[in-house]
Amino acid sequence: MTDRLLMKNLRLMGGAPVDVLIENGRIAQIAAGIAARVGDAVELCDGALALPGLVDAHAHLDKTLWGMPWHPHDQGKSLQQMIDTERALRHELDMDPARQSARQVTLALSKGTTAIRSHVDIDTDHGLRLFEGVAETRQRFADVMQIEIVAFPQSGMMIREGTVELMDRALRDGADIVGGLDPCGIDRDPKGQLDAVFGLAEKHGKPVDIHLHEAGELGAFSLDMILDRTESLSMQGKVTVSHAFCLGMNDPARVNAQLDRIAALGVSLATTAPASRPVPSVAACRERGIAICAGNDGIRDTWTPYGNACMLERAMLVGLRNNFRADVEVSWALDTCTKDGARVMGLEGYGLEAGCRADLVLVGVEALSEAVTQRPQRRLVVSGGQIVARDGETLDPWQTA
Amino acid sequence: MTDRLLMKNLRLMGGAPVDVLIENGRIAQIAAGIAARVGDAVELCDGALALPGLVDAHAHLDKTLWGMPWHPHDQGKSLQQMIDTERALRHELDMDPARQSARQVTLALSKGTTAIRSHVDIDTDHGLRLFEGVAETRQRFADVMQIEIVAFPQSGMMIREGTVELMDRALRDGADIVGGLDPCGIDRDPKGQLDAVFGLAEKHGKPVDIHLHEAGELGAFSLDMILDRTESLSMQGKVTVSHAFCLGMNDPARVNAQLDRIAALGVSLATTAPASRPVPSVAACRERGIAICAGNDGIRDTWTPYGNACMLERAMLVGLRNNFRADVEVSWALDTCTKDGARVMGLEGYGLEAGCRADLVLVGVEALSEAVTQRPQRRLVVSGGQIVARDGETLDPWQTA
Ligand SMILES: [Zn+2]
Ligand SMILES: [Zn+2]
Repeated sequence: MTDRLLMKNLRLMGGAPVDVLIENGRIAQIAAGIAARVGDAVELCDGALALPGLVDAHAHLDKTLWGMPWHPHDQGKSLQQMIDTERALRHELDMDPARQSARQVTLALSKGTTAIRSHVDIDTDHGLRLFEGVAETRQRFADVMQIEIVAFPQSGMMIREGTVELMDRALRDGADIVGGLDPCGIDRDPKGQLDAVFGLAEKHGKPVDIHLHEAGELGAFSLDMILDRTESLSMQGKVTVSHAFCLGMNDPARVNAQLDRIAALGVSLATTAPASRPVPSVAACRERGIAICAGNDGIRDTWTPYGNACMLERAMLVGLRNNFRADVEVSWALDTCTKDGARVMGLEGYGLEAGCRADLVLVGVEALSEAVTQRPQRRLVVSGGQIVARDGETLDPWQTA
Repeated sequence: MTDRLLMKNLRLMGGAPVDVLIENGRIAQIAAGIAARVGDAVELCDGALALPGLVDAHAHLDKTLWGMPWHPHDQGKSLQQMIDTERALRHELDMDPARQSARQVTLALSKGTTAIRSHVDIDTDHGLRLFEGVAETRQRFADVMQIEIVAFPQSGMMIREGTVELMDRALRDGADIVGGLDPCGIDRDPKGQLDAVFGLAEKHGKPVDIHLHEAGELGAFSLDMILDRTESLSMQGKVTVSHAFCLGMNDPARVNAQLDRIAALGVSLATTAPASRPVPSVAACRERGIAICAGNDGIRDTWTPYGNACMLERAMLVGLRNNFRADVEVSWALDTCTKDGARVMGLEGYGLEAGCRADLVLVGVEALSEAVTQRPQRRLVVSGGQIVARDGETLDPWQTA
């Protein structure tokens, strides 16, 4: 790692051209015309637009088939079918979790992502194997990719005896967050599951992130139960609900009352902004100060053939799903993939100011909105002060075979 | 133009490797191991996957700002606000219709599009100026881009006196199709507008393509009136309804009855598969044999900052909107951007068989589904037997300043 990196002539968030000096992995100075010292690494940025590091706040690093032969899809479409298909295929396909998660991290770096919250399956078929593989990747990329691991009971907690104990071990061994999944739809025991999830959170002093796909009033019921526990256990600011489709489905009075409560309890939302399901409104969340972040969810895995780890593309999909057209609205879509993700992950020193961790993504466009709608190749990606990717390619030693 | 072009080692729709011989703009032969003759142009395709030319069956070539400075968006979101904003901005911005439509055609060629149905605004502010500009582009690219022009009353027909007469002149001067727009929502006179639209169609012996954004039962009412006229005027097979959001909104019994009637009358649908509006189900259309094609609609214009003219990306958006995951389903999404578009446009000799017009798009992927979900750069685009783009760049003389 060079001691000093001087980036000349870049436009932070599309603003006026400046130079940025990076020292010890941090942004040391932002000014026009910073003079290079002997020994400085200098990057001429040609007026490129600079974004902060992109944040994929809902990923599944243990699931991707990236870099493997094309996997034909013909699984059923119910959640249970997709879960069962995947658990079986993990035995048939060579889905080494350390290798596959590293491949996705390498890909994500090339697209400018510098932080990832990854759910990782914990189940009684695979034990802690997937968690251990992703933890290995987290260690390997620690300098350049900030990875949080959610211990995620993909196959259910209450319906698969032994899962809670496995999650408990994962949390002891370094998982950062307690996961959960459709307490009614999958476990058919909302009280049992949520008491277990929040019990683990209390025991380990760790936050919670629950997948909630449940529709309509059923989803709202489960959400109420999550909010009840957040309040009674004083977990304010430590709970994320992922997807929360019910917040895009129910009547406005019901939705608005739940959003108000979510805001009051400091609960965060994570969305993928799917086109085929209702979603919480980003504008309605922003109005209330709710942190709503975005993630790519699974990319090219046994669930879906889509996805390429690009969070500018996710920002575009958030924008399209929310019918964001005005430049200010498109910037809100980008926020879900940048600072709102950082807020949900609690990233220290995130941003494009002096003193911040030096995570920058350069793209050759005129306007911020253009970065989202056109998703150009990343010219340069800097993470923790190191140049990790150039012209769309991740550099050694962060390449993965 | 070379007399013979021999393409070696490509996989049509992902099938087994073959060679393809092109003569006089047509596919002359498809076989393994075709021997080159002296003088043949030979392309080594390295096992690339070949798609037929992509079809953008709903475009607006007169609207794009592509290649112009970034246009900040802050217009309102109602249809009427966007119409009025655009009509005014056409005076303020230098939106030369011949130049701008040529820029979009050049871009579309680089992405593998070889046929476009473009709506072109006809209004009393701009007369036939926009039509004439796009007609100039149609002429210029005639060998390599099949362009249909819809005379489109973007600002209304009945509410702007003189519009019907202008459309009549455009149809006389070479517009191919009679356009229409929200007969209730914009013109507030569904009988008046639709009688005028179908009257022009009868007079000129030309098909109809109507934008229908109207929601719920209002949209279904207008749709019924369109279907009534299709039937009574024996316009079977000559009518397209674009968007038809109402077919994604109303209760299943109402929708299914209308889809059955649409199938019986040979009416086609065009969709952009927007994430923020309900849409007709592609699967429900296919079950009934209804041709449902896709288009990019406006790209980077005064309406929207999104869009890049890529019909593989549109296929992805169709797939995401319809929750298509299985390979066969993703191929249906691709069909909306290939053969269903060709069917709606009535393209002669479309396809990847001997005798077909030689329109081929090569991408370096393993599977058809991968072409849609990853949208790789186009390695080679052949249109009417000519190589028009390579490695994502349109070649001379089809470049546009
Ligand atoms: Zn997930
Ligand atoms: Zn349109």
